[in-house]
Amino acid sequence: MSFQLGQADALLIVGASEHLADLYYATRFRAPDAFVFVWTQREKVLMASSLEIDRARQQADVDRVLPYATYEAKAREAGCENPTATDVLQALLKDLDLQHLLVPSDFPLGTADALREAGVRLEVAPTPLFPQRQIKRDWEVEAIRTAQQGAEAGMAAAADMLRAAQIEDGALIHEGQPLTSERLRRAIHGALMERDCTGQHTIVAGGEQGCDPHQEGHGPLRAGEPIIIDIFPKDDRSGYFGDITRTFVKGPVPDRVRALYETVLEAHENALKEVRTGAEGRAIHEGVQAFFTAQGYETGEKDGYMQGYFHGTGHGLGLEIHEAPSLGLRGGKLQAGQVVTVEPGLYYRGLGGVRVEDTVVVRDGGIENLTTFPKDLDIP
Amino acid sequence: MSFQLGQADALLIVGASEHLADLYYATRFRAPDAFVFVWTQREKVLMASSLEIDRARQQADVDRVLPYATYEAKAREAGCENPTATDVLQALLKDLDLQHLLVPSDFPLGTADALREAGVRLEVAPTPLFPQRQIKRDWEVEAIRTAQQGAEAGMAAAADMLRAAQIEDGALIHEGQPLTSERLRRAIHGALMERDCTGQHTIVAGGEQGCDPHQEGHGPLRAGEPIIIDIFPKDDRSGYFGDITRTFVKGPVPDRVRALYETVLEAHENALKEVRTGAEGRAIHEGVQAFFTAQGYETGEKDGYMQGYFHGTGHGLGLEIHEAPSLGLRGGKLQAGQVVTVEPGLYYRGLGGVRVEDTVVVRDGGIENLTTFPKDLDIP
Repeated sequence: MSFQLGQADALLIVGASEHLADLYYATRFRAPDAFVFVWTQREKVLMASSLEIDRARQQADVDRVLPYATYEAKAREAGCENPTATDVLQALLKDLDLQHLLVPSDFPLGTADALREAGVRLEVAPTPLFPQRQIKRDWEVEAIRTAQQGAEAGMAAAADMLRAAQIEDGALIHEGQPLTSERLRRAIHGALMERDCTGQHTIVAGGEQGCDPHQEGHGPLRAGEPIIIDIFPKDDRSGYFGDITRTFVKGPVPDRVRALYETVLEAHENALKEVRTGAEGRAIHEGVQAFFTAQGYETGEKDGYMQGYFHGTGHGLGLEIHEAPSLGLRGGKLQAGQVVTVEPGLYYRGLGGVRVEDTVVVRDGGIENLTTFPKDLDIP
Repeated sequence: MSFQLGQADALLIVGASEHLADLYYATRFRAPDAFVFVWTQREKVLMASSLEIDRARQQADVDRVLPYATYEAKAREAGCENPTATDVLQALLKDLDLQHLLVPSDFPLGTADALREAGVRLEVAPTPLFPQRQIKRDWEVEAIRTAQQGAEAGMAAAADMLRAAQIEDGALIHEGQPLTSERLRRAIHGALMERDCTGQHTIVAGGEQGCDPHQEGHGPLRAGEPIIIDIFPKDDRSGYFGDITRTFVKGPVPDRVRALYETVLEAHENALKEVRTGAEGRAIHEGVQAFFTAQGYETGEKDGYMQGYFHGTGHGLGLEIHEAPSLGLRGGKLQAGQVVTVEPGLYYRGLGGVRVEDTVVVRDGGIENLTTFPKDLDIP
């Protein structure tokens, strides 16, 4: 892996790699607390606190690991009585003789202003910082496949629980208790956990709740209503994500719901056929939009709510659940090795929401689908 | 809740409230994707995408929710052919007639540079942005107590599993299989899940692994070695954290390990007695350091590793697992209503690590301990 520094002396990233995928990508060192990373023409350097330094020395893919305490002492020698993290960073940059630094666009302004004040030149690097992160290496594809299998295990647990439920006066009853979004979510998270995956914000949204794509869902589930289940766990071992959505109806399916589902499924399958090296993300998304409109499903604000199709068709995923590229209005040409979701949906008040999502690898001439879970609406 | 704007027209925060506790604190709107929040003298305004706008209108504690699409259109009218998020933000600020803004110190530099370039005045607000976030209201204390009870349920599951294990040639065997850090962690996460809490990076570190305070732990656990278990789940319902650490030994306890444990426990209990309104966080920490040294437990780098006591005595927690105040070298005067951990530990290669941690509320004259789990080293 390489990085174009241009006129700069080094790339500088400061933060917790737990939440900064680029920092983890560059260092392969996962830490919940902030550390400093400097990448010059010659070497990768990491500065860590005494709490992290041993682990950093063992795990980080860098040339040198330097102790925070050393530069804290240097900052003191330079006259700071009680050095802040920024003082210590300045001491490090001075010691390494770095005066002109590239930083990511999300670099913290407070630190930036202090460094600039001290005469350090900071320049915001283009976004994405590491475009190569989009092109997954074979082992990264396998890590995503494993996470996706975890997500599918969660989906299977949900489908099993819905299958086992009884219908009483339209309500779903499981083991004598009302089946709620919360119970189904717990069953999903249990199955994820068995595969060392962590699910957060897992969506189990029935009926009207499914109309809001970010509504996580709560309360009793009912027969005859579409239930959207969207599972996007992080694999605790690798740090990579999987992502799958299915929509189910327990019991008899109303005709208008079935028609909605079949339209979404057709759009999903059409879009899967379009994804390949060189295809335009934007064109794929516009194709889905046009298809829905042609089928009579309008999009826009109605009765004070967004209805129809008002999100992108897909997004890249990897170390982040949402990363480049986009299958949306800003989507460019797809490249081999990118991993993207394909997830059209339709949402109408009074009817409910439907979404179907697979995670696939972009290949020359078509996709490699990492998803194997069936796409059946009906849960008998 | 109020905010001191000084000379500025408004406070501006941009980001995902999922990862920006201050943004969640100010809006009570939890979203995984970035949105814009503006707080003027008169009102709180939130700008959200069409994907989030309905939920924002229902849930956000703000005066107005404005659609991203409206300002995207205005940016286009102003001549941007393909407006970026920063162009849209500029259109919003122009429309609201805001020219001088306070921003948090972690405000993204890329956006800041673009806004300044366009003539907007940005000033970094003092840290912490909302000092009042440290002083927990009664319902926040209850939310942390509930999360802490979740964490204790996880600890109980771990202790039960250790109790049920057999010792064979020094190895721990549970239900016929070696008992590993991974299996114990799964049992903990299962118990957390039952209480709608999510555990990440839960530490189950036996023997030598426990010497690295951020090592999560892996592989088979052994009898006669200290096993550090540190559980710090987020309650999915409230967003607040709990935090507890216990150290166990399965089977006979070596004398040096017991002495280590008793020293740490005594330091922990002494520190608990010191925590009260007006006490100095730094003094409490230095008291623990001095106690360990007086007991003959030295701290420093030895054989290439940090050994002894090389982390802070405690940290605030709430919407973040680590937040102000600190019981460490930078710790100031404690205030009533702050919630802090008290977690001294000692770590020596060849012996293992020991840490004991409670989460407590600072009150006048003493603590309210939110932790009830016993502090027994021995697991028979």
